[in-house]
Formats: sequence, C-alpha cells, structure tokens
Amino acid sequence: MSEAARFASRSGIADIEETAEFAPKFDAEGLIPAIAADAASGEVLMFAWMSAEALEATLSTGEAHFYSRSRRRLWKKGESSGEVLKVERVLTDCDQDVILLQVSPRGRGAACHTGRRSCFYRQVRRMNGGWRLEPMDAERLFDPAAVYGKSGKPA
Amino acid sequence: MSEAARFASRSGIADIEETAEFAPKFDAEGLIPAIAADAASGEVLMFAWMSAEALEATLSTGEAHFYSRSRRRLWKKGESSGEVLKVERVLTDCDQDVILLQVSPRGRGAACHTGRRSCFYRQVRRMNGGWRLEPMDAERLFDPAAVYGKSGKPA
Repeated sequence: MSEAARFASRSGIADIEETAEFAPKFDAEGLIPAIAADAASGEVLMFAWMSAEALEATLSTGEAHFYSRSRRRLWKKGESSGEVLKVERVLTDCDQDVILLQVSPRGRGAACHTGRRSCFYRQVRRMNGGWRLEPMDAERLFDPAAVYGKSGKPA
Repeated sequence: MSEAARFASRSGIADIEETAEFAPKFDAEGLIPAIAADAASGEVLMFAWMSAEALEATLSTGEAHFYSRSRRRLWKKGESSGEVLKVERVLTDCDQDVILLQVSPRGRGAACHTGRRSCFYRQVRRMNGGWRLEPMDAERLFDPAAVYGKSGKPA
C-alpha cells in the first residue's frame, strides 16, 4: 500500500473527545499504540504499534496489521504463524491517541509469539522484598521454534 | 517518592520472555505503556504511561498511578475526581515493555475524564467512503465541568 492513509486532520476539530471525525494522533515516529482484546471475553491479548498504513490496512481488510519497530515494516499479525486476528470492532479513546481492536483470534488462538493465548501471562508479585514474575495461564498452544524456526521469533 | 524505583536490570537476563525477574523496559523518555482493564469484566478502561516512580507507587499502594506527559508529573488516578482504580493484579507482557493493570474502579466507576466508564466509547465505522466515529456505551456517569471546573479536564 503506497498511498498514504486518509484520516481527518486534528487541526480545526474543536472537541476531539466528542467529535464524530476520526482524527487519530500519531506520535513523532508516525505511530499510535494499539491494544488487541478478545471480542468475546474482553481479555487483553497483546499490545503493538500501528503506522497510518497499518491502521488503514486493519480497517480495510478486517484483519489486524501492525508496524514492527524492530523490523521497521508493516506486519500482518499471523503472517508467519497463521495466528491471524479477525477484527470485530475498532475503537479509539477520548484523546484519539490509542486504538483498541476487539478481535476473534484465528489459528490456534495464540496471539503471543511465545505460543500463549495472551502476551500477558505473568503477574508481578512481591517476593522477598522485591518484585518477581509469576506465571499465570502460561500454557503454550504452539512451539515457537516449530513455527518460527530456531530463533523462536518472527523473521 | 524521591528514591529511584528498583527493578531488575535487563542486561544479563538471557530470556526476558521466560524469566521470573521483573525487568520492565522504559523508553527513551523513561516511560512504559500501561493498560487498565476491569478485573471483573476484562473490559479495557484506559491507556496511559508510567514512569518507574508511577509503577513503583502502583505496586506499593495498590492504587493506579501514572505519569502525565502533558503535565510532566506523577499522577494518582482519581486524585481530583475520586475515580481511583484499585489494582487487583499487575501483569507484564512477553517483552516486559507493557504493563497491564487489572483493576476495580472506585468512585462512580468512570475511568475516563469525560465521565464515561471507559475511554473507549467510540468505534470507527465506514461511512460515505470515509472513516467516522460512532458512540458506543457513551453515557456519562459524571459531569466533567462539575468535577474538574470550567475546562472539564484535570488541572
């Protein structure tokens, strides 16, 4: 997609919180934070970043697209793992500087590249006067090395 | 809180995704994205940023604290509105660069400064070939002008 995404400009909108104009705010790197939550359970599955192109692709195709800051490119969620997120609804917040996707996970239902259902599989607990992580619902639905190769990470 | 928050250093942790060490990654501005979701329903209520100090304060007090980028200061959620978020669990993601708070909203149960239950009260819809916002569960539980004064925003 070479054409720039087209959303409303924020200048000239008197009240960004109440307007029906969709004028998402991208940061200095041209990115906006995006949360994906399960449309049925509400559970937060992952967090990533979107460029205008990723947001436009998500809205147009109904499948979640993000921008990978490490790989510096548009990325369709599930392009190598098959773990596509079908988008049921796209919401934005009061300031229009965050995107919330309500999704139905496809594939094995593992949104996390580690093979878990959600990326949020550890909770912070006080232990011996410090903060430690404790697994929570951390079962793997796939083996990352089998899906992504030796690195266990998307290429 | 003048003392620096103490979390594990990321250097020397072989596998950040599987470790029990809590080594959150703060960005160049010293901030980490934080999502607050309702502990009972799973619903995403708001998104904000945390400094190490805000994260430490949240963990220590059990009430959500954030860092306001516009006001450039630590901010206890609900300090002026009374809409405190009691923190039931603090989770982090695979990369430890996002925080998820599972919370029980206090006060009137309006996490959004506009008086709504959630900041995500509008969905993006295709209309006349463009993208527009449509209200969704946008009822106000309080009047922002009555709570924050004329500006309708936290000072």
